[in-house]
Amino acid sequence: MLTSLIALAFQAAAAPPAPKAADPLPADWKPIPAAELLVMKLADERQVVIRLAPRYAPVHVANIRKLASARWWDGETIYRVHDNYVVQWGDATEKKALPAGVIAQPPAEYDWPRYDAVTRLTRIDPYSTSTGHSADGWPLATNGMVAWLPHCYGMVGVARDLKPSTGSGGDLYAVIGHAPRHLDRNIAIVGRVLEGIEHLSSLPRGTEGGLGLYKEASQRVPIISVRLASELPEASQPRFEYRAANNARFAAWVKARENREPPFFELPAGGSDICNAMPPVRRAS
Amino acid sequence: MLTSLIALAFQAAAAPPAPKAADPLPADWKPIPAAELLVMKLADERQVVIRLAPRYAPVHVANIRKLASARWWDGETIYRVHDNYVVQWGDATEKKALPAGVIAQPPAEYDWPRYDAVTRLTRIDPYSTSTGHSADGWPLATNGMVAWLPHCYGMVGVARDLKPSTGSGGDLYAVIGHAPRHLDRNIAIVGRVLEGIEHLSSLPRGTEGGLGLYKEASQRVPIISVRLASELPEASQPRFEYRAANNARFAAWVKARENREPPFFELPAGGSDICNAMPPVRRAS
Repeated sequence: MLTSLIALAFQAAAAPPAPKAADPLPADWKPIPAAELLVMKLADERQVVIRLAPRYAPVHVANIRKLASARWWDGETIYRVHDNYVVQWGDATEKKALPAGVIAQPPAEYDWPRYDAVTRLTRIDPYSTSTGHSADGWPLATNGMVAWLPHCYGMVGVARDLKPSTGSGGDLYAVIGHAPRHLDRNIAIVGRVLEGIEHLSSLPRGTEGGLGLYKEASQRVPIISVRLASELPEASQPRFEYRAANNARFAAWVKARENREPPFFELPAGGSDICNAMPPVRRAS
Repeated sequence: MLTSLIALAFQAAAAPPAPKAADPLPADWKPIPAAELLVMKLADERQVVIRLAPRYAPVHVANIRKLASARWWDGETIYRVHDNYVVQWGDATEKKALPAGVIAQPPAEYDWPRYDAVTRLTRIDPYSTSTGHSADGWPLATNGMVAWLPHCYGMVGVARDLKPSTGSGGDLYAVIGHAPRHLDRNIAIVGRVLEGIEHLSSLPRGTEGGLGLYKEASQRVPIISVRLASELPEASQPRFEYRAANNARFAAWVKARENREPPFFELPAGGSDICNAMPPVRRAS
């Protein structure tokens, strides 16, 4: 049936059959600490799991952990869904005080002085001089001087006002379209959606001001709760693993991403942008 | 109010206030022929308008025009919604014969021997040696030998089986995620969604086989009709314009896309990938 063959063809496109050299060993899968997982619950059992990036944006992530511990987002909303751009949530009315200990004006954690990628993509992109993966599963870009987390699909950033604001972390967004890499180094990236991005990306688009804001408060999507996994009952903590990148098997995986294989692909690209080679993560078994 | 300021900030991000040099003259807006516009109607007044690219994929586009004239898609469905990838429609059951004159196996119109972009983006991307815009509003990439339409958000391609299939055009997809540029030159691109992409990108995701296929036939989204605008009653023909690219004002617009401006942006990127500099189009007034 053509449909199934189209499906197979597109399976090849989405996740090419990897050569054996690219297969991970069981030990390549490493647990992600529960304190790095942020769990957002929406109605109807919809759940979004975000991995936080404390190494890259420590003050913003400390804020986010405090906001979650204080249950600050519970009862707040997703108030912006901008097609081919971002879904944004937090306090749409800006009437809610920040919990004690949350720093209203963190430093501009937009980049990081040390570039320690353990892979190197073959070709450069228009926004950096090199891209690759950290040993523990983050996409990275560099200009040779500083490093940063790129604005790929599913990455989570801190909404901010005009300068000198950097955003408290109370309002967050996730990328749901083509990577808006022009935001790189202009805004703090604090994490990545590991699971449930479809609960954000398939929401009705907002229409207000051409910005994707919901026009009516009634259109906003209620947030039931946002918690650190480490603060959930142990039985209900989601467990995730990243694939360690500092080994030859991962390097082979990168090459396979850069050169998609027959029978679907006739012409391998010979390269990839970092957003089409996002670090593999999975649910722990 | 913070919300409005966030909004303004993101407005800057989405569409920076262009310098005067980048402003188009009224005469820069050129009509798109009605025979290049494909209008797909879904329930509840949802409408998707696609500009066809006959110059780049003439045989596939001729097929698509014949399929529309024969009302081949009427009553068919959107049967695949794959998050961060594609929405696909056509005949999910593969039981429908092609109309007379439709070529079941067109040539592989994956690239084009002449690269005639009239702009040049400052930096290269991992998938080409140069990118730019055609005079009449198409994004283009080249390797110095051939040219092709890149798989950017909203671009429309022809689903195909494994080689040597090129797809008839009966099954089409639109990109709804980060640009899958690895598909470039492996598949025929035949157009671009000009309006209504949100009616595709916000559909519930399919779950079947990890491919985004809807598991149950009842989940498929019915297509009411697909018509060439030129075959609609004149009063109901949508009219669109592209912005002519062969002028200094457009070159200034490209520079503005590559270097987003204060007060929101502190660090301009100095470059852009072609998918973040998609040719402007608009409804004709």
